[in-house]
Amino acid sequence: MKNIAIIGASGYTGAQITSLINAEANLSIQGLYVSENSLDKGKPLSELYPTYSHISLCLNPLTEDAKHTIVATADAVVLATDHAVSLHLAAWFYQQGVAVFDLSGAYRFSDVAQYPKWYGFTHEYPEVLADAVYGLAEWNCEQIGKSKLIAVPGCYPTASLTALKPIAHLLTDVFPVINAVSGVTGAGRKAQLHTSFCEVSLTPYGVLGHRHQPEIATQLGQEVIFTPHLGNFKRGILATITAKLKSGTSTDDVAKAFQYYDSAELVTVKHNQFPKVDDVVQTANCHLGWKFDEATGYLVVASAIDNLMKGAASQAMQCIKIHFDVLAEQ
Amino acid sequence: MKNIAIIGASGYTGAQITSLINAEANLSIQGLYVSENSLDKGKPLSELYPTYSHISLCLNPLTEDAKHTIVATADAVVLATDHAVSLHLAAWFYQQGVAVFDLSGAYRFSDVAQYPKWYGFTHEYPEVLADAVYGLAEWNCEQIGKSKLIAVPGCYPTASLTALKPIAHLLTDVFPVINAVSGVTGAGRKAQLHTSFCEVSLTPYGVLGHRHQPEIATQLGQEVIFTPHLGNFKRGILATITAKLKSGTSTDDVAKAFQYYDSAELVTVKHNQFPKVDDVVQTANCHLGWKFDEATGYLVVASAIDNLMKGAASQAMQCIKIHFDVLAEQ
Amino acid sequence: MKNIAIIGASGYTGAQITSLINAEANLSIQGLYVSENSLDKGKPLSELYPTYSHISLCLNPLTEDAKHTIVATADAVVLATDHAVSLHLAAWFYQQGVAVFDLSGAYRFSDVAQYPKWYGFTHEYPEVLADAVYGLAEWNCEQIGKSKLIAVPGCYPTASLTALKPIAHLLTDVFPVINAVSGVTGAGRKAQLHTSFCEVSLTPYGVLGHRHQPEIATQLGQEVIFTPHLGNFKRGILATITAKLKSGTSTDDVAKAFQYYDSAELVTVKHNQFPKVDDVVQTANCHLGWKFDEATGYLVVASAIDNLMKGAASQAMQCIKIHFDVLAEQ
Amino acid sequence: MKNIAIIGASGYTGAQITSLINAEANLSIQGLYVSENSLDKGKPLSELYPTYSHISLCLNPLTEDAKHTIVATADAVVLATDHAVSLHLAAWFYQQGVAVFDLSGAYRFSDVAQYPKWYGFTHEYPEVLADAVYGLAEWNCEQIGKSKLIAVPGCYPTASLTALKPIAHLLTDVFPVINAVSGVTGAGRKAQLHTSFCEVSLTPYGVLGHRHQPEIATQLGQEVIFTPHLGNFKRGILATITAKLKSGTSTDDVAKAFQYYDSAELVTVKHNQFPKVDDVVQTANCHLGWKFDEATGYLVVASAIDNLMKGAASQAMQCIKIHFDVLAEQ
Repeated sequence: MKNIAIIGASGYTGAQITSLINAEANLSIQGLYVSENSLDKGKPLSELYPTYSHISLCLNPLTEDAKHTIVATADAVVLATDHAVSLHLAAWFYQQGVAVFDLSGAYRFSDVAQYPKWYGFTHEYPEVLADAVYGLAEWNCEQIGKSKLIAVPGCYPTASLTALKPIAHLLTDVFPVINAVSGVTGAGRKAQLHTSFCEVSLTPYGVLGHRHQPEIATQLGQEVIFTPHLGNFKRGILATITAKLKSGTSTDDVAKAFQYYDSAELVTVKHNQFPKVDDVVQTANCHLGWKFDEATGYLVVASAIDNLMKGAASQAMQCIKIHFDVLAEQ
Repeated sequence: MKNIAIIGASGYTGAQITSLINAEANLSIQGLYVSENSLDKGKPLSELYPTYSHISLCLNPLTEDAKHTIVATADAVVLATDHAVSLHLAAWFYQQGVAVFDLSGAYRFSDVAQYPKWYGFTHEYPEVLADAVYGLAEWNCEQIGKSKLIAVPGCYPTASLTALKPIAHLLTDVFPVINAVSGVTGAGRKAQLHTSFCEVSLTPYGVLGHRHQPEIATQLGQEVIFTPHLGNFKRGILATITAKLKSGTSTDDVAKAFQYYDSAELVTVKHNQFPKVDDVVQTANCHLGWKFDEATGYLVVASAIDNLMKGAASQAMQCIKIHFDVLAEQ
Repeated sequence: MKNIAIIGASGYTGAQITSLINAEANLSIQGLYVSENSLDKGKPLSELYPTYSHISLCLNPLTEDAKHTIVATADAVVLATDHAVSLHLAAWFYQQGVAVFDLSGAYRFSDVAQYPKWYGFTHEYPEVLADAVYGLAEWNCEQIGKSKLIAVPGCYPTASLTALKPIAHLLTDVFPVINAVSGVTGAGRKAQLHTSFCEVSLTPYGVLGHRHQPEIATQLGQEVIFTPHLGNFKRGILATITAKLKSGTSTDDVAKAFQYYDSAELVTVKHNQFPKVDDVVQTANCHLGWKFDEATGYLVVASAIDNLMKGAASQAMQCIKIHFDVLAEQ
Repeated sequence: MKNIAIIGASGYTGAQITSLINAEANLSIQGLYVSENSLDKGKPLSELYPTYSHISLCLNPLTEDAKHTIVATADAVVLATDHAVSLHLAAWFYQQGVAVFDLSGAYRFSDVAQYPKWYGFTHEYPEVLADAVYGLAEWNCEQIGKSKLIAVPGCYPTASLTALKPIAHLLTDVFPVINAVSGVTGAGRKAQLHTSFCEVSLTPYGVLGHRHQPEIATQLGQEVIFTPHLGNFKRGILATITAKLKSGTSTDDVAKAFQYYDSAELVTVKHNQFPKVDDVVQTANCHLGWKFDEATGYLVVASAIDNLMKGAASQAMQCIKIHFDVLAEQ
């Protein structure tokens, strides 16, 4: 039995991981936390999320005392906090010896030089960062087992990299084009004009300048064009990716490349059948569909995940299970 | 040609009435106004509403100078402002002799005693209020033509009263039950948690205590139970009304009662066919459908309108045309 | 371990109960069945529902042989079939000694006289019908344990009766008014014009003539006005109910009546807080919210469930567990 | 005053063009037609589309007599019919000397060899086809004025070509990637499983094999990758296009290219501001937004239109007005 503290539990991602851990027989929840000055402190989680009426836990303020109690009693912390908050919390808990599963972007680049540009802060913990592992569960299993600081990737990189990594060796210098549409939960729970019900309608944003572009490029080892969109649905992401493959690539080569997932329980690959967002919503699955045109060398592969699940909370759960080998314990 | 100033033009209702007046050959727009400290002042309307890319007007701050210019040059003002703001502006412009079409609730009750309870303010202009006319266009045509202060009813009362007024003489002391579902534009443009895209889902609100209940009851001359709901759509209202009619009422009696609308261009009545919200969205129409059970004496009548049109802006246009007899001029 | 055959597994309800039984440690699936001439026969369930990619079962044709194998090997059959199909299948399996959980309406009225009017067929099995039990789980627990033929109620009656039964003794001869809005899955999976994406928009249907009205009235012991609506969402039902209570009823009396659910795990009752459809979607829960006006004696109570879960599949699971005492076994 | 017959008026596109022509002072409707064996023949249009309750026209069967009456009395026919039906009707009416505005794909390719592959029929009227003009209104104005057979482009090519044609001279041999998402009206009004409300969810279709790909390529003079998607909204299209431009291209070069639309009333171009689908729904407008990365040479341009308006009916209206110079007459 591993005991886990969840910090930032009032947000969409934090609430989702709470419900997942709560449902897991071999995991227990040390406590739910929000920032000391949060208006939600002291409230039951179910007041914010009536759908979790069966979870009776309250949102505690993350005081200094609380932090030390976590260190004393928890095996791990999950950080569902803002990048700038995770930056410090992850380092502190890591240095106290607690395993950290960070769902923010604060430890996803191994190169400190990237943070000022993409996150607006200087990374003050290069020695901690050096130990961080990128928690793409189907790809970095061994590292996730070894490191106590896991930077769980977010929704766009997970959808994109799950589709692109198997065919990385087939890419050319023509940049793969990633068009992705995210549900509105991806923008978080705070009331904002552009995520108001009446304002939401399919539209691109962050064009040629979104911070997930360099993250995808770094993990893929290849530049890409990444264009995110806001879609008029609550959950889910669809990434449609177009890539020019190396001259001489055959359909069979592509099929073989995607056999990487033959033993992956959560990734389904179909040839010439394409995924629908709602088929993965509320699940931990990634659905891939692809088609390749041998005549032109162009591949289209589409990838669908639930942004709050495989794109955040359920991937964090995969990392937790890998790290603690929870399944083996059972 | 009548010249009209629109105050509160940055909101959903103000923008809608702007587009309607802009399209009317015999009306011109004196100017668009927002409050002096609005963050939107100086912006083109089309920056807030790209759908109105063909309207090149900007949102001017409503300074004292602007108010005097309006008095000097406009035939009428449309107030798409908050109740507490309309309260003063309507009185001031009315006293300067400008015709006022107020889309707020500040002049909808003729009884000053209602305002503290339902709007949270004391009505300081009882003598102005005494001249105000309730702008339910199909019912108060003559008065609308005569008064220079028209309190245009909002969406719920318009949908409800259009359905109930023709059968008012058939009602009993069993309260009619009005269940109404409104699109989210009814809550205004300001970012709020409960109208965030991810939070919206069909739910009742203001149960047994919404201020439109006494407004409907007053205009109908009969108490009602009014339960509004927020629906997961942008525009439109459906009010489904159940009423026990007087003993002995026949289906024919009900049919005759609804013949009131035979000559009403914008109201369609169908027997045993029920309206869909989307059939009236973006139109000035009200669609009514009804069925009566002679055995039990219960009538169900459903009423659908676009909350921003017949429930606000297009009904204001009806009032403007009636008042100025614009059509006759053509 | 109980072994369960699911007939009609290709529909929304059948697929949902399949996924629930599949997830239950103490239940196994004997097989999935569709009618012999179904176009879906032989297909994997996951071809129709990619969201169930982890379920590898195929849809078998329900041949005579298959029926006899079910009798030989299954402890129970779940019928997610059309009323007219369930009529015969339920009787046949019941007579073979297999426990039957029927999700259709074929055994919900105990009075055979109701079937020609509301279902268009004469009920040919009055002696089987006499043994049938209405599977409203929170109310008929003891009977569900004893009978081998459970008529699981559908979505509208479950939402309505869960709200009304606790206060049945407080009702008057003024008919309670039930306004209910259902998600489109309630209309089934078959392609039809009125459930096409572009045609769906909030609208009433079956006004003063829906077959769930007499079902609710029978189970409640009180006539009601029931007006169903089609809403623009996939899953969920909200029933908003207005009832005039007996003279002298206090808010406390109502609160006490709803204490009936204090020990009900799946029913949550809140005073003056109202449920949202999405808070119960994908769950087995019913959320109730109520407010009472002592001055007029009117109560408003709203009830939200997932139509495919508490309104069908998860309530069938409750009945299965009660009947087989599955939990006690664990 | 030009008199226009509308054939195929019962579909989404046909009904939309009917409402547009009905609203135009200088155009009259000769009649509305459906096929002789349509179930809708004889019905008022407003029975199918209650939103057009102000249009009292009925749907007439297109008999041989009706066709001759059209020739005798109409100045033009609008064909909102299936490709295979338009093929013959367009040729016949054209040969009778009536101007034809065809909204199908039957005359969009000038090369007869394309039809068997993409439309499944041999084009039997090469001499008529030779006279046909591609009705992309902002580009082929002069030809539209001269020819009596206008093949009005559909939604995807209109959205894509409006974005790409201004920069055609800047393209390289790296194929532009067009990712487009269409509202469900694009699939027509017929009930089909994949356009049922509960089945719709964002998904790609027609990947690397949609017939609009060669249409776009032909009109652009450059191969493209075109991936259409079905989106969960009723109306509108967003095409997000990624193109590698010629080495040395500057942001200024792109800006200058898009100045092509400076005098186009219906096309709005914005630099670094991207369109939302709902901003163009129910309008005749095309909204373009673009951003160019000089470092990599990649351009992203997004294009939004209403698929039933600029992507069909309102573009047909543009063609009608250009052809008959209707505006000049006024």
